Amino acid sequence: MDEFSFIRSIKPDHYRQSSLIKGIDDDAAVFRPSGHDVVTAVDTMVEGVHFTRQTMEPEQIGYRVLAANISDLAAMGSTPAFYMVSITIPSDWTHEELERVYEGMKRLGDSYQMDLIGGDTVSGSELSLSVTVIGMVQKGKARYRSTAEAGDVLFVTGTLGDSRAGLEWLLNPKGQASEDHTYLVQRHQTPVPRVIFASHLSHLERLALNDVSDGIANEAKEIAEASDVDLFIDLKALPFSEPIRNVFPEHYVNWGLSGGEDFELLGCVPEKDWSQVIEAAEHAGVPVSKIGHVKTKEGPVPVVMVNKSGEWERLTSSGYTHLKEKGD
Amino acid sequence: MDEFSFIRSIKPDHYRQSSLIKGIDDDAAVFRPSGHDVVTAVDTMVEGVHFTRQTMEPEQIGYRVLAANISDLAAMGSTPAFYMVSITIPSDWTHEELERVYEGMKRLGDSYQMDLIGGDTVSGSELSLSVTVIGMVQKGKARYRSTAEAGDVLFVTGTLGDSRAGLEWLLNPKGQASEDHTYLVQRHQTPVPRVIFASHLSHLERLALNDVSDGIANEAKEIAEASDVDLFIDLKALPFSEPIRNVFPEHYVNWGLSGGEDFELLGCVPEKDWSQVIEAAEHAGVPVSKIGHVKTKEGPVPVVMVNKSGEWERLTSSGYTHLKEKGD
Repeated sequence: MDEFSFIRSIKPDHYRQSSLIKGIDDDAAVFRPSGHDVVTAVDTMVEGVHFTRQTMEPEQIGYRVLAANISDLAAMGSTPAFYMVSITIPSDWTHEELERVYEGMKRLGDSYQMDLIGGDTVSGSELSLSVTVIGMVQKGKARYRSTAEAGDVLFVTGTLGDSRAGLEWLLNPKGQASEDHTYLVQRHQTPVPRVIFASHLSHLERLALNDVSDGIANEAKEIAEASDVDLFIDLKALPFSEPIRNVFPEHYVNWGLSGGEDFELLGCVPEKDWSQVIEAAEHAGVPVSKIGHVKTKEGPVPVVMVNKSGEWERLTSSGYTHLKEKGD
Repeated sequence: MDEFSFIRSIKPDHYRQSSLIKGIDDDAAVFRPSGHDVVTAVDTMVEGVHFTRQTMEPEQIGYRVLAANISDLAAMGSTPAFYMVSITIPSDWTHEELERVYEGMKRLGDSYQMDLIGGDTVSGSELSLSVTVIGMVQKGKARYRSTAEAGDVLFVTGTLGDSRAGLEWLLNPKGQASEDHTYLVQRHQTPVPRVIFASHLSHLERLALNDVSDGIANEAKEIAEASDVDLFIDLKALPFSEPIRNVFPEHYVNWGLSGGEDFELLGCVPEKDWSQVIEAAEHAGVPVSKIGHVKTKEGPVPVVMVNKSGEWERLTSSGYTHLKEKGD
């Protein structure tokens, strides 16, 4: 493949962000944040590790790696603006397939008016996409996981475990796919980052946010540790979709706690602001559920507790399975 | 290897940039550019493609991928501030070797007070490093390759072809390495980006810059095309080191034009400012050479011309070799 013709084929023909000064045409991109704070993150997906041709179409690979990154921006309360893509290309991927990967990214990026402003194209033995995203947030308004306080409501958007369930079906399909399966697969392949929901909360004084990229057990632990508080999760309040309940009745609670990449947002707000979170969710068209609360740290280290059959037990970052080993 | 313990081992224990608000401890990093424009680029190096264990020590791999990125920032006239590293780790690299890769980056980053503010760690079949750099530049002071004008002086820093020559020696060593070889190898493994030189030119009204990551033939073509001018290069004025002349007398001109990654800066300034470029180079302790001039475009497309044995001939981006094919 001719690298230059490929780069030409993916180069945007125009840019949308007014803060952009120079896009792809120089040694580096330049933008002017004009009084905003800048938020940035990077995420990599490797063929055979994060996806295979069995689990994803080329468009979905592109879509999903960008979605994972945008989800990080949403969890900081910031607005996506730019992305850069470093791609490692093995010889068994065609020019056309690679264009479809970029199409998938473009489809999602366009929905936020994001501009592709840079990248790198190298050859290698496995397809790998390393995406850098840049977002803007009003000065001092970035949302940190370290700001939860005792008395806060713990909430989560959407439903949990669906992505893990979709992956399970893709890897081990048994029989004909129903509408339920299709739903779960779609949640795995094309998750929607909760940017709009988070943006509707920009007026809140205090809000701790984490995106759910590794099960809520782990994300809750991160909030607890960063904020030095204890988190209490009400197992019965966890939101699960009808499809996951139908298809994987024995697994869904476990997957919701510790499985997969749902890219929902886990957050803590003062009790008095909970109604505004509900309002924001309605405006964004996203479900939101109160799933627990925050308490002052009791022991020597911050913990996440979950009530299983009436009793509160400690939840580890690897989730529910460990609950079975008492005293873990 | 335990991913979390590795990440802990590379996490900085403090940050230096005053514009940084949040480093590695959240979903994304946050900084406040305070009236500066932000410059960003990404660059990837893959084992077996850009380096091997034969050509680089782990520290040098880290050093070099960051140097390539910082060179892009220098070519924009910006000051390095932050970097993020996405690393793909194959099973045959030890924890200790990987730490050395990060040590190499840190060594260079520290010299510019840069902070490591994010990244990703994934597994894969070949070592790959994708580095994103972020720099700051005074508002409106970024340097573009599109600003060259007829009458400008064309200059380049340092000497050309050394990196390519060092690589040649590493791949095909013949006999004992002399001081000349050591010099060339060092130029390949640990190139010095020209940040300080570029920063000393910040007062200039107009300056076109490109970093030499692919031989000056290609970089000159990029300036010519972006600025819509013709560039004339005086072959006899090209700067070459004594070591490259000694060790590769038959190759050095060709390598200087089209070989390797010297990470020098190629630039165009108005004739009246040339003396200030010399001064900046003296202050930065970097050699600088006037190697040609800029003219109004004569033909239908911008071209780069080179005077070979008295006559001006067109130079293609793949360099000097093509000069031999008349009429290329």
